[in-house]
Amino acid sequence: MSSAYIHGYLPRESERLQDQAGTLVDLLHSDTSYPAGSAILEAGCGVGAQTVTLARNSPGARITSIDVSADSLREAKARSGAAGLTNVEFRQADIFALPFEPESFDHVFVCFVLEHLSRPLEALVALKTLLRPGGTVTVIEGDHGSAYFHPDSAAAREAIRCQVELQRRAGGNAMIGRQVYPLLVDAGFDAVRVSPRMVYVDSSKPDFVDGFTRKTFTAMIEGVRESAIESGIVEPGLFDAGVRALYRTAEADGVFCYTFFKGVGEKARPCTLELTT
Amino acid sequence: MSSAYIHGYLPRESERLQDQAGTLVDLLHSDTSYPAGSAILEAGCGVGAQTVTLARNSPGARITSIDVSADSLREAKARSGAAGLTNVEFRQADIFALPFEPESFDHVFVCFVLEHLSRPLEALVALKTLLRPGGTVTVIEGDHGSAYFHPDSAAAREAIRCQVELQRRAGGNAMIGRQVYPLLVDAGFDAVRVSPRMVYVDSSKPDFVDGFTRKTFTAMIEGVRESAIESGIVEPGLFDAGVRALYRTAEADGVFCYTFFKGVGEKARPCTLELTT
Repeated sequence: MSSAYIHGYLPRESERLQDQAGTLVDLLHSDTSYPAGSAILEAGCGVGAQTVTLARNSPGARITSIDVSADSLREAKARSGAAGLTNVEFRQADIFALPFEPESFDHVFVCFVLEHLSRPLEALVALKTLLRPGGTVTVIEGDHGSAYFHPDSAAAREAIRCQVELQRRAGGNAMIGRQVYPLLVDAGFDAVRVSPRMVYVDSSKPDFVDGFTRKTFTAMIEGVRESAIESGIVEPGLFDAGVRALYRTAEADGVFCYTFFKGVGEKARPCTLELTT
Repeated sequence: MSSAYIHGYLPRESERLQDQAGTLVDLLHSDTSYPAGSAILEAGCGVGAQTVTLARNSPGARITSIDVSADSLREAKARSGAAGLTNVEFRQADIFALPFEPESFDHVFVCFVLEHLSRPLEALVALKTLLRPGGTVTVIEGDHGSAYFHPDSAAAREAIRCQVELQRRAGGNAMIGRQVYPLLVDAGFDAVRVSPRMVYVDSSKPDFVDGFTRKTFTAMIEGVRESAIESGIVEPGLFDAGVRALYRTAEADGVFCYTFFKGVGEKARPCTLELTT
C-alpha cells in the first residue's frame, strides 16, 4: 500500500488535514458531544486532526484514540500536548485486532477511516462488539463523487478520478460517504440516522474558498500527482490541467461543492420481555 | 424546441412537478415569504406547481404569475382556483418581452426557469429592471450534475447524461444550479447569497424515497426515453438499464442525493451622498 495518499502520512497532507479541521470543524463536529464520565473510543485518529475537537467538545469524557501508525500517533500526541488536552489516551492498535474487552466503551467515533479500509463493514461490526448496549457509533466520511464545480472541467474530473482510482487500488473507497447509511444498517446498528454535510463554496465565503477549495480539496488532489503519473493512469499534462481547473473554481465567479456524510447508530439494548398476567 | 422534456407540458410531467412541490416544498420554499401589500412577479410559473406555495406563504402579497405557454397557464389557473387562491393574477408573457413598467415589482421569484433558457443572464438583467430599488430576486434551480447514488451505476449516469444533453440541445442547461451565484452577481445584484438545498434520501425517509427518488427524479429521466432514443444519443438497452439502476437506489439499502440551489440578490438602492460640514 503506497503511503503517498493515505491522509496524514506526509507533512503537506498533515497540514492539509489541519486546515480541514480548522474550517470544517463546526460543520462536521459541532453536534457531537459526549457526557462527562463516558468512555469514548476514537478509532483511527491519524495525526489527531479530529482528536483535539473531539476532546474539547466533550471535556468530561475519557477518550481513547487509537491508530495503526506509530508515526501518526507520535504527531497526534504532540498535537494533543500542544492543545493542553488531559482527557485523551493514545494507543497503537489495528482496528481489526483491538486490544479491548467487549462492551468497554460508551461511544465510538470514526472519522475519515472507513474510506481507507477494504472491509469497512467488518470494521464496524468489530467496533460494535466494543460498545455497551445503548451506546452509539458516529461515522464521518467524505465522498469524492460529490465534488462538482463551476466552471465545470473534464480535466478536473479526471484528476479527481485519479485520486479515487489510487485509493481503490490501495483497497479503499474514496466515494464511501454515500454508503454510510447501508454500512451502519448492515453492521446491525439500530436507529441509524445519516445527515449530509455539504460544503458549498462561492466567493462570498473567502475563508472556505481558501481553506477548503484551495488548501483542502485541491491540495489533496495535487498531492497524488506523482503516484498518479507513476502508476500510468493519467498523462501529466491532463492531470496538471485538472489541478489548474480546480484552482480556477476558487476565483471570484467560481463555485465548489463537496459533501461529507455523518451517520449515528445505536447498539440495541437487550430485549426485556415483560409478561403481564 | 421539442416539448417532450420541457417540464410541465405533458400530463405525467405535470403530475411529477406536483409530487415534487409536495415533498420538496419545505426544503425549497419555507424561507420565502413576502410582506403584505408587496407586489411580486413570478416569472415562468409553468403549470403553477410553485405558485400555490408562493401565494400561501405570502397571503397578503399581490402575485403576478407569468408564463410563455398558454396551455401551462390554463392549468396553473385551474390549480390556483382549486386551491382557492385570491392573490394571484396570471398573464401570458415572454420573459424577454415583459409587459410591465420598470420598477413595477417589489420582489421577483424565479423557480426552475433559468435551466430552460439559452440566455439566463439576460433574463436576470431584464427582470432586474422590473424591480424597485431595494427589492430582491429569488432564484431556485436544480443541478443534474449533483445527482449521485448508491449503488453507483454507469448506466444510470448515462441515462441522466441523456436528459442533460437533450436539455442542452433545446438551449437549456440542466446543470445550472451551481451557477446561480455567478449569474446573480453578473446580472448586477448586490448582497447575493446562495444556499444549497440538498435532498438526501435513504430508506429511513420513505416519503422521500417514493416522492423524490422514484416519482420526481427517476420519473423525469424515464420521461425522456423516447426523445433520447430517437435522437440517437443512447441505445435503448443502456437507457433502460440506467432507469432500472435509478429505481434500484430506492430499495432498502439504496441512497440518492440531489441538490437544488436557492439564491437571493438585492437591487441596490441609489447611492445617497451625505456631506458633513
